[in-house]
Amino acid sequence: MPETLSPYPARVERLRNALPEKDALLILGEKNIRYLTGFAGSDGALMVGPDWLTLLVDGRYVTQARQEAVGAEVFEFRIRVEGIESVARRQKVGAVDFESQVLTVDEYLRLQEKLSGVTLRPLSGELQSLRAVKDEGEIGCIAEAARIASEALADVLAMVRPGVREKEIAVELEYRMQQTGAELAAFETIVASGPNAALPHATPGFRTIGPGDCVVIDYGAVSGGYHSDETCSYFVERADPRQREVYDRVKEAHDRAIRAIRAGVSCGEIDRIARTCLDEAGLGEYFSHGTGHGVGLDVHEGPRLARGREEILQAGMVVTVEPGVYLPGLWGVRIEDTVLVTDGGCRILTGSPKELTIL
Amino acid sequence: MPETLSPYPARVERLRNALPEKDALLILGEKNIRYLTGFAGSDGALMVGPDWLTLLVDGRYVTQARQEAVGAEVFEFRIRVEGIESVARRQKVGAVDFESQVLTVDEYLRLQEKLSGVTLRPLSGELQSLRAVKDEGEIGCIAEAARIASEALADVLAMVRPGVREKEIAVELEYRMQQTGAELAAFETIVASGPNAALPHATPGFRTIGPGDCVVIDYGAVSGGYHSDETCSYFVERADPRQREVYDRVKEAHDRAIRAIRAGVSCGEIDRIARTCLDEAGLGEYFSHGTGHGVGLDVHEGPRLARGREEILQAGMVVTVEPGVYLPGLWGVRIEDTVLVTDGGCRILTGSPKELTIL
Repeated sequence: MPETLSPYPARVERLRNALPEKDALLILGEKNIRYLTGFAGSDGALMVGPDWLTLLVDGRYVTQARQEAVGAEVFEFRIRVEGIESVARRQKVGAVDFESQVLTVDEYLRLQEKLSGVTLRPLSGELQSLRAVKDEGEIGCIAEAARIASEALADVLAMVRPGVREKEIAVELEYRMQQTGAELAAFETIVASGPNAALPHATPGFRTIGPGDCVVIDYGAVSGGYHSDETCSYFVERADPRQREVYDRVKEAHDRAIRAIRAGVSCGEIDRIARTCLDEAGLGEYFSHGTGHGVGLDVHEGPRLARGREEILQAGMVVTVEPGVYLPGLWGVRIEDTVLVTDGGCRILTGSPKELTIL
Repeated sequence: MPETLSPYPARVERLRNALPEKDALLILGEKNIRYLTGFAGSDGALMVGPDWLTLLVDGRYVTQARQEAVGAEVFEFRIRVEGIESVARRQKVGAVDFESQVLTVDEYLRLQEKLSGVTLRPLSGELQSLRAVKDEGEIGCIAEAARIASEALADVLAMVRPGVREKEIAVELEYRMQQTGAELAAFETIVASGPNAALPHATPGFRTIGPGDCVVIDYGAVSGGYHSDETCSYFVERADPRQREVYDRVKEAHDRAIRAIRAGVSCGEIDRIARTCLDEAGLGEYFSHGTGHGVGLDVHEGPRLARGREEILQAGMVVTVEPGVYLPGLWGVRIEDTVLVTDGGCRILTGSPKELTIL
């Protein structure tokens, strides 16, 4: 396979270009390291110089690093800060710009001690958008993850009935996704029924589903390292007028936000549109989180679609749209799709129907 | 249920006692927060004062926090550092000791700015041992997780045969564990065969198992929030003399380490015993990680059983013993049990047989 088919060298170059005058970058986020090198291990550090690239790993990952990160030199450390020190000294680095949203204060203080004479500078925003615009390969992975997830959900939907426990559905759904090609579940699947549906981040428990419950299923798959993220809310056997009204309003907020998405619009504007729709119905106070987030190697990544966010959507970004209404102690509804931003609008990547459904 | 049955107030008191002269502690580690309050959400902050206890969460977690953290005041924030600032100002805190192994440099710099006039001091070692000694309830959870895991493994062992892919076994094992009561798999189950078994942290892939393979299965369950951790290595259809020799030696290292475990022995000594056993057979260079680690609310927590660690084992600690030999490009063997340290020795909590087994 010709070397040029690898996406990694161009990604590293883009990072070098964006930060031209720097001496060395210290990348510590696991997913950023994977994005830049292909190394999929869960611990390491990547140092990027003007004409060198060194992946630092401990003994557990040396073989894997050599296999996966073909474009980088692999350096083995026992203690990470000591490895960073060795590479910095060898390359005669004058300044290190580090990922301040990942480096802990503990490691920072030890690094300061080891690297006396070297300037340590926090990178804050510079890496936020590194992975935000996806290439064709990445979009294909997310779409594949979404396809696997939706098909698995369709298969387990018959289980959502009175007498079945939340956890049973979650376990079955994750199993089906992995049997049909998902590497993993994208996150701990949420199956929240009745009052649990009023908790935006409920973990599935042993509550037994009953008639009249709203059941919120927030789920996704991983394919090629990339995540999908989708939420469906169903009613069991019946839905009362208030439930229908809230569902319709959340769906309207979801639809209006999706219709507004296109390259050039700000993230905060999409959030405002969804929020206004719920505000108009007196439901704004029950919408306690942002409207969406980027999805990729992480299930939550940039950009954030939340109040006041000025970042502009670009073609190739993949984001969720997930308004919800949570009535504490009673029930809740959330409707979520993952969409690809295009120049003229967006393409929905997640495939489960979002019409009000009574199971 | 009488209030006194809750383990949380005593845990908070122990933390207050260990750090008597401090103004406020800022706890950020998710599992430490759960240990001290019962709150099982994945984002928040806990502030501990001499006579006050405040759990800070964002809007997604307010309802859950009120339900679970009964002994703490719940404070809702939109941006975590702003929440911390509000509570610190209200309590007129003069100094904040923060978890430096969790706080990122980014949040630290913002906190410094917000809390001018307040001293920020990194806690480094003080919290390391907070959760190391387990109480009866915790030990019961770990033992239950181990029981669920072993029974599930026994059920899927018939799948380990030529023609089956690693991932199929991992998916089936995680499914069985959750069907029989595990909240989750303790970590991404490792099923590594042939040359993949030479990667200590391999993720299960689409490699098809063949005759003569060694298959390393590293797996665990979660029960009541607590993890089990166990590794079995099997041979498929046959084992050659070198494989038998290495297996026996790894088993000997495992057994010697377990025989040496008791309250009063240092962690480094246990590592030395396992390592020496492999060194004697010329295999020391292929043992590329520590001998073990604590297990509890995290699958990896203190203490670490590794070279030179001076920490002393205490009754009630729960640790793994997991020597391994990895022959790059060829195969590997790891044998791991989770044990409870007692005054006179230890009790093995993980239940799968560790004798050389040809499937």
